[in-house]
Amino acid sequence: MNTTPASAVAIYPGSFDPITNGHLDLIERGARLFDRLIVAILRHDAKQSLFSVAERMEMLSEVVGAFPNVSVDCFDGLLVDYAARQNATAILRGIRAISDYEYELQMALMNRRLQPRIETIFLMAGEAYSFISSRLVKELFSLGGNISGLVPPPVEIRLRQKSEI
Amino acid sequence: MNTTPASAVAIYPGSFDPITNGHLDLIERGARLFDRLIVAILRHDAKQSLFSVAERMEMLSEVVGAFPNVSVDCFDGLLVDYAARQNATAILRGIRAISDYEYELQMALMNRRLQPRIETIFLMAGEAYSFISSRLVKELFSLGGNISGLVPPPVEIRLRQKSEI
Amino acid sequence: MNTTPASAVAIYPGSFDPITNGHLDLIERGARLFDRLIVAILRHDAKQSLFSVAERMEMLSEVVGAFPNVSVDCFDGLLVDYAARQNATAILRGIRAISDYEYELQMALMNRRLQPRIETIFLMAGEAYSFISSRLVKELFSLGGNISGLVPPPVEIRLRQKSEI
Amino acid sequence: MNTTPASAVAIYPGSFDPITNGHLDLIERGARLFDRLIVAILRHDAKQSLFSVAERMEMLSEVVGAFPNVSVDCFDGLLVDYAARQNATAILRGIRAISDYEYELQMALMNRRLQPRIETIFLMAGEAYSFISSRLVKELFSLGGNISGLVPPPVEIRLRQKSEI
Amino acid sequence: MNTTPASAVAIYPGSFDPITNGHLDLIERGARLFDRLIVAILRHDAKQSLFSVAERMEMLSEVVGAFPNVSVDCFDGLLVDYAARQNATAILRGIRAISDYEYELQMALMNRRLQPRIETIFLMAGEAYSFISSRLVKELFSLGGNISGLVPPPVEIRLRQKSEI
Amino acid sequence: MNTTPASAVAIYPGSFDPITNGHLDLIERGARLFDRLIVAILRHDAKQSLFSVAERMEMLSEVVGAFPNVSVDCFDGLLVDYAARQNATAILRGIRAISDYEYELQMALMNRRLQPRIETIFLMAGEAYSFISSRLVKELFSLGGNISGLVPPPVEIRLRQKSEI
Repeated sequence: MNTTPASAVAIYPGSFDPITNGHLDLIERGARLFDRLIVAILRHDAKQSLFSVAERMEMLSEVVGAFPNVSVDCFDGLLVDYAARQNATAILRGIRAISDYEYELQMALMNRRLQPRIETIFLMAGEAYSFISSRLVKELFSLGGNISGLVPPPVEIRLRQKSEI
Repeated sequence: MNTTPASAVAIYPGSFDPITNGHLDLIERGARLFDRLIVAILRHDAKQSLFSVAERMEMLSEVVGAFPNVSVDCFDGLLVDYAARQNATAILRGIRAISDYEYELQMALMNRRLQPRIETIFLMAGEAYSFISSRLVKELFSLGGNISGLVPPPVEIRLRQKSEI
Repeated sequence: MNTTPASAVAIYPGSFDPITNGHLDLIERGARLFDRLIVAILRHDAKQSLFSVAERMEMLSEVVGAFPNVSVDCFDGLLVDYAARQNATAILRGIRAISDYEYELQMALMNRRLQPRIETIFLMAGEAYSFISSRLVKELFSLGGNISGLVPPPVEIRLRQKSEI
Repeated sequence: MNTTPASAVAIYPGSFDPITNGHLDLIERGARLFDRLIVAILRHDAKQSLFSVAERMEMLSEVVGAFPNVSVDCFDGLLVDYAARQNATAILRGIRAISDYEYELQMALMNRRLQPRIETIFLMAGEAYSFISSRLVKELFSLGGNISGLVPPPVEIRLRQKSEI
Repeated sequence: MNTTPASAVAIYPGSFDPITNGHLDLIERGARLFDRLIVAILRHDAKQSLFSVAERMEMLSEVVGAFPNVSVDCFDGLLVDYAARQNATAILRGIRAISDYEYELQMALMNRRLQPRIETIFLMAGEAYSFISSRLVKELFSLGGNISGLVPPPVEIRLRQKSEI
Repeated sequence: MNTTPASAVAIYPGSFDPITNGHLDLIERGARLFDRLIVAILRHDAKQSLFSVAERMEMLSEVVGAFPNVSVDCFDGLLVDYAARQNATAILRGIRAISDYEYELQMALMNRRLQPRIETIFLMAGEAYSFISSRLVKELFSLGGNISGLVPPPVEIRLRQKSEI
């Protein structure tokens, strides 16, 4: 009735503007669950970004270099169409809070309607990361707060460079 | 840094008193994500059950027979200890509602603390199953309501047999 | 395609053990929305009750006497079957909190599946009543707290009589 | 104490930019509950709209033509003032999720303070429509996704025409 | 192990654009809990404000004049840095709804990480104020609605003056 | 208009069956906010307890010994009456989750109605304690799980002693 794919591929989509330690924790956990994990930046996001797609891909690549089965990519159009082109069976998402949960539920139901064979699977954010978001990191940094421990070192360096300009 | 297991095993734990079509939908989706899926009945549950563990295993076995990579089992003690003994890398859980979400979050964080290498992964219940629960099925049946479409046929037969006694 | 019933009947079901001022507020508002409102006690409730069904019907009848289009009844079996026998087009429910909301949503979806022509309609509890429940009133009374303003006077009298026995 | 109005009128307010099958389901259900249902577009909405008020009224009129007791209108100013001018006794709202619920609760309490005689009544979105919103439909369409089954046919045609310009 | 500060100071931060009766209720309650309460306007808010910081400080000062241990201030940069400069031990926040709760939880965890000695304490909004927000007041006023009872009289006067210009 | 009490007293009520590290974290934080903090066991709780009130008082006393301004007590009847007898101005409560939040809101509104001068103040559980509850600790222990780090050492010793009997 069903056949497990020879090699299980999952997509971890997002803006990653910039990647946080919460994202990194999810990537590490996702890399243990799947044969291959693709971290995929949504190229045409409605939200104004701080870092360009190229900068974000560069930072992600530095950070996920330690994981042999994780790659970085970006995509246009519908997530499920991109996932299908990558032969992915799963979309990986993290949940931190109820408000996340509701939006994610809506997207998961919609995506399942569009591509019934691709599952959205959810991991709960680790308790140490439950309050971290890209938005909060940028806000905190802009107000002079200490962001060590919230983002990987390459991101901290880039944020400093950006603010010096 | 990490190595994907040669064969990915997941546990789908629960009371299954009785199995509903909501559970069955999750089993079908889980069977596509993992090499092997073990549906595992928690033997010593605090809640009083309608069906014995033996009856529940029998019903589950009939229902999941169509899935070659799904097996049925029962366990005592801690779920994470059982999962570790089965070399599972994942625990599969469905979420229907916010109240589910909170309890599941609490359990997932606790289980991760006990066994950091075993991930709890969540699938959202399909919209057609969002209102079905074993408790509601039993309540509906006891009040003379029609449960067709809510449980697999073998469960409907057993519920009728039980009420005739 | 649809025809509005000559006379719109709604059912307001519950345990009413005992009726609170929150229930009364909902009855008053429901009475303005429908031609006829039936306050219906679920006879075989799983929860142990403080007042018998007869006592609860008596209290309800005293309290709703002022509303000419409100009557009091009790029923066995499925709510939607009872509602259909009364030619009701609507089931009236109050919502006080998120936890209410989720249970109510589950029941509304189930009831709609059983009887698609009967709508469950929801009114938000007035802010002055958002913290009142039958359970809380009984708990407060048993600890010697002042329940004036939380229940109609006939209920206060009965609670006193019950505690004197 | 209270008198049921000779003819019960309800307002179903919204942006309807554009109308979805979720809205249509609610209109159909509302039309069975009230003698007359007015679908009313809020004219001066803070959100930027895709369709003009005239286009939205046109689409709504085509879609609700099958319901003899449903009419389409638009309004300025406060919803409760508009409802009072229409002699409405109820405002009809759909709830899909917790986040809806909270905003709706806030608006219902405020509107009740402004016009105590007009009730806001809520229907839960059908499970098949729980993930549909005007915003999601527009996003999906702009990314090339298939929106059949999410909006009535006249809306699909207009969306195509708009994107061809 | 711990020493209670000789004089307990709390900060009540916000936009107060404008102050509502919900804020005022919280100030009155906070003033009873602490030796000194500082109502502090966040100067560089991302949101566009209706009233200037100077106007907001003026309105707040008029309104809190009756409380001898309440003062009004404004600040730049991180809230916890400002709180530390004021020797505050607590940040006071009101919660009206679940969505508030989640955002507040995120901020409280972040602030505790930045300044572990400063506690964020929460009071639940009184039921009479659970639906009032600065945003809703401004919206209601702009649509010609009656805002008496929602804001202190000096705010009502200023809103009128602003709209006459 | 208001006068801050010479010495601010707060009550931290609960079952503490047994005290967890989550409770202890809250006690430590509460002890910094108030001149005096009374940890108060509700004597007549509806829930069946594992430890007697005497055992719970003993464990609490051992654990809070390090805090000079914290004392342990137990009470009957209404919490607000007990708080008034102790001249307390505040009731301290921790919130871990949405479901906590709703129950706590209901109790806070009720208690404020009973004793308007006593405030219920809330602290968010630290992220490291968000999944710990007395119930979960007992369940985990009974299944042979490791509870180190979840409860203070004296509690772990007593749980072991209890299970050896």
